[in-house]
Amino acid sequence: MAKEITSREENYSQWYNDIVKKAGLAENSAVRGCMVIKPYGYAIWEKMKDQLDLMFKETGHVNAYFPLFIPKSFLSKEADHVDGFAKECAVVTHHRLMNNPDGPGVVVDPEAKLEEELIVRPTSETIIWHTYKDWIQSYRDLPLLINQWANVVRWEMRTRPFLRTAEFLWQEGHTAHATKEEAIEEAQKMHDVYATFAEEWMAMPVIKGYKSDNERFAGAEDTYTIEALMQDGKALQAGTSHFLGQNFARAFDVKFLNQNNQEELVWATSWGVSTRLVGALIMTHSDDEGLVLPPRLAPIQVVIVPIPKPDDELLAVANDIAQKLKAKGISVKIDTDDKNRPGFKFAEYEMKGIPVRIGLGKRDLAENKVEVARRDTKEKSFMPMENIGESIQQLLEDIQQNLVDRARAFRTAHTTLVDTKEEFIKTLDEKGGFVLAHWDGSSETEQLIKEQTKATIRCIPLDQQPEEGICPFSGKPSKGRVVFARAY
Amino acid sequence: MAKEITSREENYSQWYNDIVKKAGLAENSAVRGCMVIKPYGYAIWEKMKDQLDLMFKETGHVNAYFPLFIPKSFLSKEADHVDGFAKECAVVTHHRLMNNPDGPGVVVDPEAKLEEELIVRPTSETIIWHTYKDWIQSYRDLPLLINQWANVVRWEMRTRPFLRTAEFLWQEGHTAHATKEEAIEEAQKMHDVYATFAEEWMAMPVIKGYKSDNERFAGAEDTYTIEALMQDGKALQAGTSHFLGQNFARAFDVKFLNQNNQEELVWATSWGVSTRLVGALIMTHSDDEGLVLPPRLAPIQVVIVPIPKPDDELLAVANDIAQKLKAKGISVKIDTDDKNRPGFKFAEYEMKGIPVRIGLGKRDLAENKVEVARRDTKEKSFMPMENIGESIQQLLEDIQQNLVDRARAFRTAHTTLVDTKEEFIKTLDEKGGFVLAHWDGSSETEQLIKEQTKATIRCIPLDQQPEEGICPFSGKPSKGRVVFARAY
Repeated sequence: MAKEITSREENYSQWYNDIVKKAGLAENSAVRGCMVIKPYGYAIWEKMKDQLDLMFKETGHVNAYFPLFIPKSFLSKEADHVDGFAKECAVVTHHRLMNNPDGPGVVVDPEAKLEEELIVRPTSETIIWHTYKDWIQSYRDLPLLINQWANVVRWEMRTRPFLRTAEFLWQEGHTAHATKEEAIEEAQKMHDVYATFAEEWMAMPVIKGYKSDNERFAGAEDTYTIEALMQDGKALQAGTSHFLGQNFARAFDVKFLNQNNQEELVWATSWGVSTRLVGALIMTHSDDEGLVLPPRLAPIQVVIVPIPKPDDELLAVANDIAQKLKAKGISVKIDTDDKNRPGFKFAEYEMKGIPVRIGLGKRDLAENKVEVARRDTKEKSFMPMENIGESIQQLLEDIQQNLVDRARAFRTAHTTLVDTKEEFIKTLDEKGGFVLAHWDGSSETEQLIKEQTKATIRCIPLDQQPEEGICPFSGKPSKGRVVFARAY
Repeated sequence: MAKEITSREENYSQWYNDIVKKAGLAENSAVRGCMVIKPYGYAIWEKMKDQLDLMFKETGHVNAYFPLFIPKSFLSKEADHVDGFAKECAVVTHHRLMNNPDGPGVVVDPEAKLEEELIVRPTSETIIWHTYKDWIQSYRDLPLLINQWANVVRWEMRTRPFLRTAEFLWQEGHTAHATKEEAIEEAQKMHDVYATFAEEWMAMPVIKGYKSDNERFAGAEDTYTIEALMQDGKALQAGTSHFLGQNFARAFDVKFLNQNNQEELVWATSWGVSTRLVGALIMTHSDDEGLVLPPRLAPIQVVIVPIPKPDDELLAVANDIAQKLKAKGISVKIDTDDKNRPGFKFAEYEMKGIPVRIGLGKRDLAENKVEVARRDTKEKSFMPMENIGESIQQLLEDIQQNLVDRARAFRTAHTTLVDTKEEFIKTLDEKGGFVLAHWDGSSETEQLIKEQTKATIRCIPLDQQPEEGICPFSGKPSKGRVVFARAY
């Protein structure tokens, strides 16, 4: 089975598609750009969703649900916002089909044209701020800390499973505040939540920073981002948190009476991560044998395989071990298939990225031990049956740690300080990764660099050090380095 | 606050709308027929969702996600199905907006017309069976036991929050089987899961039965239903599970090789419940003071109110009690508001349907007791501080039981055997509820009864007793009674 996937070296893009397909994560659907998320891929998303939801609730947020459709006129109310989304949206124009008068099948009923077209939400700021107008009168109604789990549609021309799809699943937080400071603090807090989730759960180190003017969200005053590095040296924007200023409050006339009984516009944030994270997870850890999953997000953490085949005696031991693991909160699958050979099964579980495989052979059991294979390093070792629960729990923690260490080492090795245009281009072409370079701060230069190198400013890092320098492209002075990369 | 809601007697429909609004469950949105589910309403749906998801997984199902859009041509492939849904669907015809050349705002870009229109899914049988064609080749690929949590759109003309909305949230199970027997067993199993959920979690007794030809799902061979009785004497279909035969397999050419290496069409089921259940919950238990929630689905099960106001001493006791309750898995809110008076707060918590309210007064605490008010009966009593965790846990169980007993007693009192047309109509007009009457089994008579009485056959009960009788409307012979009611 493993032989069926293209190696990363041969063709990284095909390798990614092969993993998505062979690990049973997703596939293209009959609808252009929309994917079917298959059960195993969805199970990973569910694990992500459950943990994120918990983190949102721990930071004081509640969930709600707003309509799928947005009246066309709402989109135009915030000028930058409509520019950002109008060119790629699904438009509902009719509400009925009728039998085709000229043949078989059904056609759109021309009598059922909507008075105003509806847009399938590409994001929900407009419908939500229209709603917030009724919910907010006084400072006592603030803050509003609301999140929504939903599907959204952006009519992208070039799509790839998880990374860029016309429909995707996500969460979008939309908060309302009485002061600018509080809104900025909220946007930064959720930025931190995303970074913590990426590093501690996905084992994916990220650079925290904010976007340049060019790359900011349509309608935001500041966009905070977490940027991860994929194994092919390209960057991936994994989550963004926006300080929206009073832009949407102004567009939808949302005001409140402050403690001094004066009317003010409300301050806003929004923040989101999507099923794109599944793509990021694949590309951060997986190898030429298939998917590699961090234990904390693996739907099945341990598989127990009786060798060479299941029988009553081996299954009894398997059940006993499974009980001990489940008692520690570890998810376990016992392989009861008696048709395929161990080698075939091993390849399959490697393809699926199950972090730990326990092989149960009678000879080993006679010696009171089992064979344990870890997916991340593919190392095998023997473990005594005694305290097997504790041992496996520790191993899962080690794997989680090893994955983040490995990804961090890769990132360090692929982060380069450059000072000249030649170095800049050479680094991108030969090594890839993050390039830390001076930038004069202008959108023109940023645009020029993009045209010449296909790299964009991923972010201005939050931990940027003040450093006098010269922008290698414009020759103008710069006060610090920013993070460039070619990106997904 | 309580005074603000209309009584059930005065105007049941307005009472329902008042509860939805005043308890903060949902509201109408700017998009016709689409509601905003507010945080408290959504929290109830989340509790339902979590429990149902657990029950689906315990019965062997996994979740997946299929596209929001369905190509128009797919709908036509199953003849009954398209008849059922074509008249009420949102149709996407374009994928881009452009600046209005004749003024402000944006308009649909006529250049961006889709080759084939897309339908926003009203249900997903067609897109899923199109996908299953690639997933199923052999009996070894069966059964497929897949569920999806999603939003769907049916362009209903008359909408009411939760009960009937253009967009709603639901789950839809879609399973594929090698044999007819296994598919029927699956449809019945999920019917049982729904009934168990309704009775044990929603405290809402239901009649289990199957639908007559007229009321069956568009494309099904058999539709199993759970039917609940609302306080105004109207029935509500709370969940359905369909045996689809080979209809969708035939329409989408989904065949498998059986163990004898012969090609056969696959057998199917689908089953769903929706946010409509929130409406059913409201109308089953609530009263003229507001929402009443069964403890198992209450987002907050206990509220602790320091009386007359919170101070350090009372808050310390409140925290202590809260700890003890949380240790038992009970969700608790401590009221720390020092602005409003207890009477106002009590009314508010009654409106929100919080099952148990604990009042903390210093005089009572000196006697080592607290005042406990239960929402269902509005009885107050004193409870010793000793073993408060166990006592409250028991009380919550008692409330859960009382609610289902009360609802069952109401249903029994509103279920009437009738044998004549006059009794039939008089019962519906004066008392409402379920009417058990003979029916000759014909669609014509069913239609006639509907026209004359506005009642429909809710179901042919699974526990129908064989009984010779005469249909009171047609005078023709009947072999058993079926359940009639006016319905939501």
